[in-house]
Amino acid sequence: MLVVMQAGATETQVERVIDKLVMMGFTVHRSTGVTHTVLGGVGPQEQFDPREFEALDGVKECHPIVSPYKLANKSFRPQGTEITVRGVRIGGPEVVVMAGPCSIENRDQIELSAEIVAKAGAKGIRGGAFKPRSSPYSFQGLGEEGLKMIRAAADRQGLFVVSEVMEKSQIGVMCEYSDVLQVGARNMQNFNLLRELGTIRKPILLKRGIAATIEELLLSAEYIMSGGNYDVILCERGIRTFETATRNTFDVSAIPVLHGLTHLPVAADPSHGVGKRNLVAPMARAAVAAGTDMLLIEVHHDPDHALSDGAQSLFPEQFVELMEQLRGIAKAVGRGL
Amino acid sequence: MLVVMQAGATETQVERVIDKLVMMGFTVHRSTGVTHTVLGGVGPQEQFDPREFEALDGVKECHPIVSPYKLANKSFRPQGTEITVRGVRIGGPEVVVMAGPCSIENRDQIELSAEIVAKAGAKGIRGGAFKPRSSPYSFQGLGEEGLKMIRAAADRQGLFVVSEVMEKSQIGVMCEYSDVLQVGARNMQNFNLLRELGTIRKPILLKRGIAATIEELLLSAEYIMSGGNYDVILCERGIRTFETATRNTFDVSAIPVLHGLTHLPVAADPSHGVGKRNLVAPMARAAVAAGTDMLLIEVHHDPDHALSDGAQSLFPEQFVELMEQLRGIAKAVGRGL
Amino acid sequence: MLVVMQAGATETQVERVIDKLVMMGFTVHRSTGVTHTVLGGVGPQEQFDPREFEALDGVKECHPIVSPYKLANKSFRPQGTEITVRGVRIGGPEVVVMAGPCSIENRDQIELSAEIVAKAGAKGIRGGAFKPRSSPYSFQGLGEEGLKMIRAAADRQGLFVVSEVMEKSQIGVMCEYSDVLQVGARNMQNFNLLRELGTIRKPILLKRGIAATIEELLLSAEYIMSGGNYDVILCERGIRTFETATRNTFDVSAIPVLHGLTHLPVAADPSHGVGKRNLVAPMARAAVAAGTDMLLIEVHHDPDHALSDGAQSLFPEQFVELMEQLRGIAKAVGRGL
Amino acid sequence: MLVVMQAGATETQVERVIDKLVMMGFTVHRSTGVTHTVLGGVGPQEQFDPREFEALDGVKECHPIVSPYKLANKSFRPQGTEITVRGVRIGGPEVVVMAGPCSIENRDQIELSAEIVAKAGAKGIRGGAFKPRSSPYSFQGLGEEGLKMIRAAADRQGLFVVSEVMEKSQIGVMCEYSDVLQVGARNMQNFNLLRELGTIRKPILLKRGIAATIEELLLSAEYIMSGGNYDVILCERGIRTFETATRNTFDVSAIPVLHGLTHLPVAADPSHGVGKRNLVAPMARAAVAAGTDMLLIEVHHDPDHALSDGAQSLFPEQFVELMEQLRGIAKAVGRGL
Repeated sequence: MLVVMQAGATETQVERVIDKLVMMGFTVHRSTGVTHTVLGGVGPQEQFDPREFEALDGVKECHPIVSPYKLANKSFRPQGTEITVRGVRIGGPEVVVMAGPCSIENRDQIELSAEIVAKAGAKGIRGGAFKPRSSPYSFQGLGEEGLKMIRAAADRQGLFVVSEVMEKSQIGVMCEYSDVLQVGARNMQNFNLLRELGTIRKPILLKRGIAATIEELLLSAEYIMSGGNYDVILCERGIRTFETATRNTFDVSAIPVLHGLTHLPVAADPSHGVGKRNLVAPMARAAVAAGTDMLLIEVHHDPDHALSDGAQSLFPEQFVELMEQLRGIAKAVGRGL
Repeated sequence: MLVVMQAGATETQVERVIDKLVMMGFTVHRSTGVTHTVLGGVGPQEQFDPREFEALDGVKECHPIVSPYKLANKSFRPQGTEITVRGVRIGGPEVVVMAGPCSIENRDQIELSAEIVAKAGAKGIRGGAFKPRSSPYSFQGLGEEGLKMIRAAADRQGLFVVSEVMEKSQIGVMCEYSDVLQVGARNMQNFNLLRELGTIRKPILLKRGIAATIEELLLSAEYIMSGGNYDVILCERGIRTFETATRNTFDVSAIPVLHGLTHLPVAADPSHGVGKRNLVAPMARAAVAAGTDMLLIEVHHDPDHALSDGAQSLFPEQFVELMEQLRGIAKAVGRGL
Repeated sequence: MLVVMQAGATETQVERVIDKLVMMGFTVHRSTGVTHTVLGGVGPQEQFDPREFEALDGVKECHPIVSPYKLANKSFRPQGTEITVRGVRIGGPEVVVMAGPCSIENRDQIELSAEIVAKAGAKGIRGGAFKPRSSPYSFQGLGEEGLKMIRAAADRQGLFVVSEVMEKSQIGVMCEYSDVLQVGARNMQNFNLLRELGTIRKPILLKRGIAATIEELLLSAEYIMSGGNYDVILCERGIRTFETATRNTFDVSAIPVLHGLTHLPVAADPSHGVGKRNLVAPMARAAVAAGTDMLLIEVHHDPDHALSDGAQSLFPEQFVELMEQLRGIAKAVGRGL
Repeated sequence: MLVVMQAGATETQVERVIDKLVMMGFTVHRSTGVTHTVLGGVGPQEQFDPREFEALDGVKECHPIVSPYKLANKSFRPQGTEITVRGVRIGGPEVVVMAGPCSIENRDQIELSAEIVAKAGAKGIRGGAFKPRSSPYSFQGLGEEGLKMIRAAADRQGLFVVSEVMEKSQIGVMCEYSDVLQVGARNMQNFNLLRELGTIRKPILLKRGIAATIEELLLSAEYIMSGGNYDVILCERGIRTFETATRNTFDVSAIPVLHGLTHLPVAADPSHGVGKRNLVAPMARAAVAAGTDMLLIEVHHDPDHALSDGAQSLFPEQFVELMEQLRGIAKAVGRGL
């Protein structure tokens, strides 16, 4: 912890800061420069709010120097984390593609979807049974019935299943049918849910909130990991900016930034990232080129009649063509797909 | 619903859009301009995703023309909504101030806080019993014990109580002790929680998410109201922008914008909005000048030793001085306090 | 300058950083903690890019500890700067209001405007002669003819004049007619223009760019001041955020933040900050409540027929009513108007 | 132009809007729905501010339906624009790479740079002679001397030259030495400069401002084109968001969005987009995967001693390796490099 005093800070002000540091258990090193005094605090705990020091008289700024996340930190497991789901390795040399519709709508739709995506080379199927919708008047999902349908369809095609869990009470039923539990962007800081997910033994796909910094995403992963569940996959899916030409701004750079900070596998969801069908393929290609370990793509057998997110779902033939391009790009960056 | 076709859209493309509109139950008016054909759809339902039309070939853009929220809309109750809590009218001619510490820490602290804020003229006391913390290693709140303490302190001083509910399972206990249930910024789109809060009969203080548009805030209010609970107070508490000089950018303009769009009372929380003690007073004054109906202010009897958010809590004497200034400003805009 | 090494940085990496610091003229203090080594550099110059150190192997982060602006820094003149324009003190105990149309359109319009704003209590008149328009097909201003008109109208009413300068070649003519030269938001980082304005002896009203941090605004002021012109007034006029309900988000908190960092007077332009007439009055009140030294308000005698920005211009009677409210608020915060 | 009236708008209000539309030269179509009246205006001119209508009583919202840019619009030249610079086709089937240092520092540096980038396969060299620096105390560039050096070095290696022009007075000298004139992000809305660049006959590389929407970028291109210079290359180089892990957020999706809206070639500058060396290669790969026509990469023979932007410049060997990967990606998306 570094506290930089203001130019002209008085000795009394400096001492008050030292006292507070000592009281919190820090050993203090003082170094006096031409204009500024800097106090370095070394101690066992770093869980504090730097603004507490910045609010003291005479303090210019305060910098914590230890990352607030430990288990998610790259230094915790520098070789990287590989998560195996039904024999598919996520975070390994191959890029893993998961595809499927936004919502599970009925048995035929999900069976057809599973067949389409499996044939094109996807390893997992996605589909929502509980839907968080911003309007209370929209379709809210099929619930457990939907989960049964996606499980059956996935088994028939040899795919693993990813589905979103929206609250603690759904965790039990979700674990019965789904191989990976997804936490949606809106729940990235639902800490009660995260803590509960730390106690189960299924991999978690944690989506970045639309206004979450990369550090906050890692802190949310830490919440889960601190409960004992180390199998977390981080997922970029677009952040909110001033630009309105796209639904969100898909932050491709989050992929290499995360690879530099953490050992956890990194996924990308260009469908939600951009929200428009014609942009999904270029952004999926960009994500693979930037080093993503996993891709989530919305595909619907009949997007014009989808109950949700039809506008960002690929037609089956578009998905087949995209997979072909992705194989070429994966190869160019030294990976398979 | 208005669909604007691209310049050069073919007749087949226009007809496909008309077919989709008719299929969804709209009556269609077509008007052909020099460069663009515009289709107006009139119909009973407006719950759809405009991007579904924008994804069709030949479509330039689509504009829904009915607001997606109805009960929260100003036209639903043009005279405005007044909510009475223990005899205090929120949304009436007087600006209501609620103050107190970020967290309930122990009996003495909350008793002292209640005394300080009541004496200075506040009508309500705030204090968290369940704390959403971005780090899993931080203080998480006292739970029900804390609620008992704040209730007792408030009763002794004639104050109403506001406290934050973080998930469905806490609603019952919260209703026992708290007069107003607060939904925090991170839960603004926790739709399961919102739906549940629609079924109770206590006023809800709904905080704007740090990346939520004003329309999304109103849609979240609609979630609660559609369950039958019409007593919702909307609260601006800062949005996330590129500026790092403040913790968030406190969007004062949200206050008059909301007053133009909805009949619900509008509150402001400058303490979270700026996150630094020396900015709280100017921004509290700004909020009253801009027309807020209610103010939330963090006050701590000893901010340097607060367990959370000490850096943004006012000292008691600062709060007293602020209340004095606020009275002058309220008067200048034709209100009391 | 503080360089924090990564946990596990090697001795060779530490030494390489020390070498670079020494080469740049810094005296280096080294302090070795449990997990991190921190290097403090003390030296005569602080003009460097911290990212240069962060790009070195083994470096975690780098913090400059001296502000990059010196002349604009509050410590340079702690008592504050007062700028006197035709007898009106800006930055003194009274809040100064400047009002007028967006563009100078013709003699009658500007004469009428001057009369209206002077009568209501404004001390200065604003009006553009050179207009920066985002479309090449929009009205571009009357140029020098317009300046003559506004000068004459201002003289008749005893007002000072503020008008915008868009490029170096306009500075000469602008100095003839205008008392304060305005630099628009789009030119805040037009460094060639800023440098030239440092050589003249007229006050500069420097508007914050829509994506400029407060630190960047101060650095732009420093550009002007480093040329010898210390009379700079900083102006908040809205930043770009994700919110679309307002044209920009008017960052009221910039006012107290700037007062904490600099001795220069602070102005606010709520008309551009929000872009909608019905929001101008509440935000003007908020700016005064938050401590602005000066206000710029767009007023037009006939907004429905204004050649530019009519939608955000007040009607004369609205301006009169607003001035009345502002007097009450100024009084409540211990100032006149 | 579509004007949507509020639910409950009076006949008088509707008529006032119709009058204004007619006065502006529009033919008006009125269509009355269950809740809303919609007025469609068809007319020769679309250069107006929609807020002017939104400020009228009874108006809910107003949508222009003709794009404010015409010459930059894809429909103006659906087959796309190809710009040939010294025999190199920009916007054609091959992706063109331009590389070089941030600033021209001295003859040896630029000669070495030219050799390095030419050998690795770049077709153009970049390097600044006039530097816009946010601090007045930083290195400001070599001016014309620098331009002579880069021209000589480029000629020796068969490269074309791109350099930044900061103001009108530099256009003449820049045209003598540079093949493409770059407009920096900070000048994207320097309309006087843009207008002047419309009168010359050299291609312009127009960088997106850090807070500019894609529509604003296209409007700035329109400024140049409306003067007669149709050879404009648009360049994404990062936008400002709340995320601080990168210098800017490099908006890769702008590439396919622009390809959908305009016929102009699209370039990408990942070096400025992310600002950190280790992120440049992944983002350069992402840009090619997303369909960029041209890439700008900062390369320095000795980044640790660069006078500017060393932290984001690639080492020569990194650039060689990157070029190899880019060839594979270009091939996967059906292009050469």
